[in-house]
Amino acid sequence: MHSVSKPVIVIHGGAGAIARQAMSTEKEQRYRLALGDIVRRGQQMLAEGGSALDAVTEAVRLLEECPLFNAGQGAVFTHQGGHELDASIMDGHTHSAGAIGGVTCIRNPVLAARAVMERSPHVMLVGAGAEAFALSQGLERVAPAFFFTAQRYEQWQRAQANNTGAALDHDIAVADDPIDPDTKFGTVGAVACDSLGHLAAATSTGGMTDKQTGRVGDSPIIGAGCYADDATAAVSCTGSGEIFIRQVAAYDVCAQMAYGGVSLLDAAKRVIFGKISSLGGAGGLIAVDAQGNVALPFNCEGMYRATGYVDRVADIQIYR
Amino acid sequence: MHSVSKPVIVIHGGAGAIARQAMSTEKEQRYRLALGDIVRRGQQMLAEGGSALDAVTEAVRLLEECPLFNAGQGAVFTHQGGHELDASIMDGHTHSAGAIGGVTCIRNPVLAARAVMERSPHVMLVGAGAEAFALSQGLERVAPAFFFTAQRYEQWQRAQANNTGAALDHDIAVADDPIDPDTKFGTVGAVACDSLGHLAAATSTGGMTDKQTGRVGDSPIIGAGCYADDATAAVSCTGSGEIFIRQVAAYDVCAQMAYGGVSLLDAAKRVIFGKISSLGGAGGLIAVDAQGNVALPFNCEGMYRATGYVDRVADIQIYR
Repeated sequence: MHSVSKPVIVIHGGAGAIARQAMSTEKEQRYRLALGDIVRRGQQMLAEGGSALDAVTEAVRLLEECPLFNAGQGAVFTHQGGHELDASIMDGHTHSAGAIGGVTCIRNPVLAARAVMERSPHVMLVGAGAEAFALSQGLERVAPAFFFTAQRYEQWQRAQANNTGAALDHDIAVADDPIDPDTKFGTVGAVACDSLGHLAAATSTGGMTDKQTGRVGDSPIIGAGCYADDATAAVSCTGSGEIFIRQVAAYDVCAQMAYGGVSLLDAAKRVIFGKISSLGGAGGLIAVDAQGNVALPFNCEGMYRATGYVDRVADIQIYR
Repeated sequence: MHSVSKPVIVIHGGAGAIARQAMSTEKEQRYRLALGDIVRRGQQMLAEGGSALDAVTEAVRLLEECPLFNAGQGAVFTHQGGHELDASIMDGHTHSAGAIGGVTCIRNPVLAARAVMERSPHVMLVGAGAEAFALSQGLERVAPAFFFTAQRYEQWQRAQANNTGAALDHDIAVADDPIDPDTKFGTVGAVACDSLGHLAAATSTGGMTDKQTGRVGDSPIIGAGCYADDATAAVSCTGSGEIFIRQVAAYDVCAQMAYGGVSLLDAAKRVIFGKISSLGGAGGLIAVDAQGNVALPFNCEGMYRATGYVDRVADIQIYR
């Protein structure tokens, strides 16, 4: 059955409304170039026989390294003026999973999640315990200032000035992000199917701008923001985290396929346009099955995304 | 359709192997009495027209107050010698949910989870942020010593002496717990169906003895250790937390019913004897549907549990 797999990687860099001041081709181009570079790295790894697990790990690490996206460097500020990073990863072949929440000093949260998966007896570690474990595994420590970017700082100051708490401010946009950063669900993620038909998913985020310290969204919750099962799909989500948790969004795609015989595309659409929309949620997801079919539904104006089949030119999109 | 609901509450106090030195009727009696008192309080609330949500909140609060069970007072020690408490709650009527993780100074974690659900825009808060929120909502703060019990302290010292880390030690049991406390998955929980056919679930735990600081198990993860949906079931789990997370155990019961047309009992059994056992996991769950059917499967030797239909004598069980 694995002979019919089409190796593919899909990445996303968050979803949201389109910034009114940000329609120029030049501004879009920065995001397209970044997405293109990262998805091509994943395509190359899969073409060389790399595993889906390694491809999603590297793609999310690169998304974390890119300050355009809200994960790793480029993460948003918490209400208290710091950064708290969450990430998760799951291997669809073994059903192994790892997640970290609320870390402040680990350069690449996705590598910490993978270390939890592979080198601890646990699935999820949070806070100081997660940091201590990651450092014990040799992961790179950075000073909090590493995560500072001027764009996120200004965004945080706007949020504080508007006293919006963790709410999203639709009225104030900046000019350098095609998707309004003040309404964007800033999460990055990757899903992949490798040449053996194995699936993997990874998700990473800085959370919501001006969020309450200690708030955990869907990104590090296995089943909500990330899930992978070779028999059904690998899924990574971005959106109103609380509603994705309440609807167990990522796993629901897999459950519909496993128990309802629904196709990947139909299952993914029903989650976003049915379950998420019905509770007033916004966002999207990326998903892949073991035949290499992909689905990228979202119910807001745009989602940074790219699909890279091995031996094809990558497809990079921002808007609907 | 609600006229066919049989109001019922089910509670559990953890599952595990039976302690060899602990077969006396007298010892069992302490647990049976505690379970009986608590389930009767839930029956009384439902008989008076109370909601499923209020009944599970109060039942779990009482289980937290009882030092026999690993939640609230009676919680196990972490590797560092402290207590870190997790809890979650979900309302099947509104699909609202709340959870807290890693709190050290809140007397009743389930009340903090309910406050997150009802009085914050978030679903999950962890660590100091969760504590600050709970205190801002007027919940009772206690000194860490409040959670001390001599039994848990001795258990922790045995775990440290045996250098088992967070592993379970099958060879050393104490005499005052019918289910070997060193192998027990110490979680408490409650599920209920009220006279309107609304469902609710709540789960609370002190986690694993000698656990790594920052470890989050399934108890505070919506979908893993707790889920409720009036259309399918309310579920609370206890067991090998990491495997319950990887299999999204609580929500999987609901998904099988929703998408596969499976009965509550079959869905619950397939989770425990299929999905959990297949990954080497141990434990059990309690579940109820909107008709008042209940399921209480577990794949280990015992699970503290009680079922209380309104207007019937409660059924209290420990062993298979």
